[in-house]
Amino acid sequence: MDGCRQGNPLFLMLIVQKYGGTSVDSFERIRNVARRIKSLLDEGNEVAVVVSAMGGVTDKLIAMAQEICEEPPDREMDVLISTGEQQSIALVTMALNQIGVKAVSITGRQAGMKTSGSHTRARLETIDSTLSQRYLMEGKVVIVAGFQGINEEGLIQTLGRGGSDLSAIAFASSINADLCQILTDVDGVYSADPRVVPDARKLPEISYDELLELASVGTKVMQSRSVEFAKKYGVKFEVRSSLNNNPGTIVTEEHEAMEAVVIRGVSIERSQARVTITGIPDEPGMSGRILGVLGDDEINIDMIVSNIAHDGYARHSFTMHTNDLGRAQAALKPVLSELGGDANLETEAGIAKLSVVGIGMRSHSGVAAQMFKALGEGGINIGMISTSEIKISITVEETRIEDAARVVHAVFGLDSAPA
Amino acid sequence: MDGCRQGNPLFLMLIVQKYGGTSVDSFERIRNVARRIKSLLDEGNEVAVVVSAMGGVTDKLIAMAQEICEEPPDREMDVLISTGEQQSIALVTMALNQIGVKAVSITGRQAGMKTSGSHTRARLETIDSTLSQRYLMEGKVVIVAGFQGINEEGLIQTLGRGGSDLSAIAFASSINADLCQILTDVDGVYSADPRVVPDARKLPEISYDELLELASVGTKVMQSRSVEFAKKYGVKFEVRSSLNNNPGTIVTEEHEAMEAVVIRGVSIERSQARVTITGIPDEPGMSGRILGVLGDDEINIDMIVSNIAHDGYARHSFTMHTNDLGRAQAALKPVLSELGGDANLETEAGIAKLSVVGIGMRSHSGVAAQMFKALGEGGINIGMISTSEIKISITVEETRIEDAARVVHAVFGLDSAPA
Repeated sequence: MDGCRQGNPLFLMLIVQKYGGTSVDSFERIRNVARRIKSLLDEGNEVAVVVSAMGGVTDKLIAMAQEICEEPPDREMDVLISTGEQQSIALVTMALNQIGVKAVSITGRQAGMKTSGSHTRARLETIDSTLSQRYLMEGKVVIVAGFQGINEEGLIQTLGRGGSDLSAIAFASSINADLCQILTDVDGVYSADPRVVPDARKLPEISYDELLELASVGTKVMQSRSVEFAKKYGVKFEVRSSLNNNPGTIVTEEHEAMEAVVIRGVSIERSQARVTITGIPDEPGMSGRILGVLGDDEINIDMIVSNIAHDGYARHSFTMHTNDLGRAQAALKPVLSELGGDANLETEAGIAKLSVVGIGMRSHSGVAAQMFKALGEGGINIGMISTSEIKISITVEETRIEDAARVVHAVFGLDSAPA
Repeated sequence: MDGCRQGNPLFLMLIVQKYGGTSVDSFERIRNVARRIKSLLDEGNEVAVVVSAMGGVTDKLIAMAQEICEEPPDREMDVLISTGEQQSIALVTMALNQIGVKAVSITGRQAGMKTSGSHTRARLETIDSTLSQRYLMEGKVVIVAGFQGINEEGLIQTLGRGGSDLSAIAFASSINADLCQILTDVDGVYSADPRVVPDARKLPEISYDELLELASVGTKVMQSRSVEFAKKYGVKFEVRSSLNNNPGTIVTEEHEAMEAVVIRGVSIERSQARVTITGIPDEPGMSGRILGVLGDDEINIDMIVSNIAHDGYARHSFTMHTNDLGRAQAALKPVLSELGGDANLETEAGIAKLSVVGIGMRSHSGVAAQMFKALGEGGINIGMISTSEIKISITVEETRIEDAARVVHAVFGLDSAPA
């Protein structure tokens, strides 16, 4: 069958499961995780598991550090908070032993997770899975500490937000797993946020690029770097619920049948603001200069629209989170002074962004037209427009964003046809 | 001066301090530890520190394990409980940073602690202190996780009871420290238990062998294996209080002046029982057979007195903890049957052991006579007697043990002369 590893025909599939903190935040939930692992084994699969710290433990450790030290060194934060995962892998392994499943825990170091870069937000460089492979060959379930590794100097480092997902995807790649299941508190990836669009449907599958585009516009199922890693190394993964046994959403490489669906999903992002600078001399380097000062202040710019106005001056508009608006204005003030009397800055808060994403857009024309027509018929004004090969993003007034999402979701038939 | 390291004349002394769980069981105590370390530095010393888990943490982790699994695998227990020390080293390091002291934490693995043997009670084999030395050369205080190391396979192991003391002594040896301070909740080693002998005095110094003999007879200041390690590698250490700044007791190699003191200390052990077997054919191997069955049942035998009675049969008496008496009788029953009709077993509970210890005994005669005379004058009957080169142990009725201790303590002048 499709998922079988050639090297080990005795097993149905080699599956890596990843359980987040809420899945292991009580003894009962740890026992439940053990039972889920056992049922996968009983079906004939080979299993390795990546576990986060028990829910709340990491926050508690951070609070302890802050009690002791105003600015705890990142190096020591990593030593401290990496104990959270080390505890949970031991406990999950014990729970498996209790129900008769042979299992061993391995820390990030033992799993060969090599990191680099800064403490508390390290990069995962390589994985030497020799030890893990040996245990798997011995018929043991391997329980791996997520979120952590060691750098070249042998120091413990953690991977920062979403690090356990990254650990799981990377570990799955290193042992050549057939599937990596990300067990979480959502059922999968939806065609839209069901709280906004009641007709939203769970997607049976989605491509890496589509999930990346959706993730970058607010559907925070997974951190982008985990999806990017999966894409780079071709790791097929499934986002599914740890609370039930329903199939989730398979995230995979594009295949031809996927292109039949024009739009995979709709996502929205609220609390956006627009900054527009007019009267900019149309000279090389001006955009870089403007975006540069914002970057220096770590203000995240999202959409950018630039053009030359009828007066010969350039005009730049960009969006950001409303919270960053004040800092952006302050950062841009000196630049405006340099530009002289014709330069002007306008801002607009209270807007939101809507994006439609689908690899089918590449081979289908008229998508934007269909979308804009439907919004117009719904009486919704479009502000900025920005497009990529597989995405169309627009801004609308924030008060209309939910209406806009429902109109667009319906016009592309996401509520009825199999997504 | 005496304590100076030749290699690093800039520093007064290189000191390893070891803090137990009660010294780090609250934020305030952790801050206190940091201040103590800083004052040693301020005096011009170079410092490395070995820390236990915060008081209560290890027990809490063990309770969690038992909640999850009836018989948690020892391998996983080590993964779980070693997190206790990893947390405390990070917190102590942070507390040092907070008061402006450069410090780094290092786990048992990073400290190069190589272990072997069984999980949860591993042996410490070697220490590769390369990384620690590097940090010390950089002027940093090194905060080392006690109680833990890794074995040849790279698995985390813990050293069992008293393991942090052993870590400290061994680490001090590996970095060639001038002194290892064991900070604990007692002020030092006393000439007798002050609760029993109000005149007991704190000893300024004691030899390894004397402490070993005292430790083996009930003065549980430190586990024997730590003292044996210190003796083997000549690590001078000091047992002192973490609650005040009083000098403690220096434990060191024997030197000539020490022999002037005949008796260093008196120790007692309560709840002992005696088993006597009579009517044993005087044949080779009989003692081994009898002690063998007790050993097989893991019954610890303490004093052994054997002789040939007037009837030509051998007679063996030995002492053990009262709690083991029932098991010992059961274990010996089949042996008695084999020995036939003349063999007989008697038991006596309600006895206690008193020992006097001192390397001065080697060069002073009449010590036993002096002791027995004083006890006789005090109306205290002596049961069994057992001697070694630097120790005399006797049994008395348990109701008289405190009187016996005071009589002996006084007759050797331990309450008045500088010990």
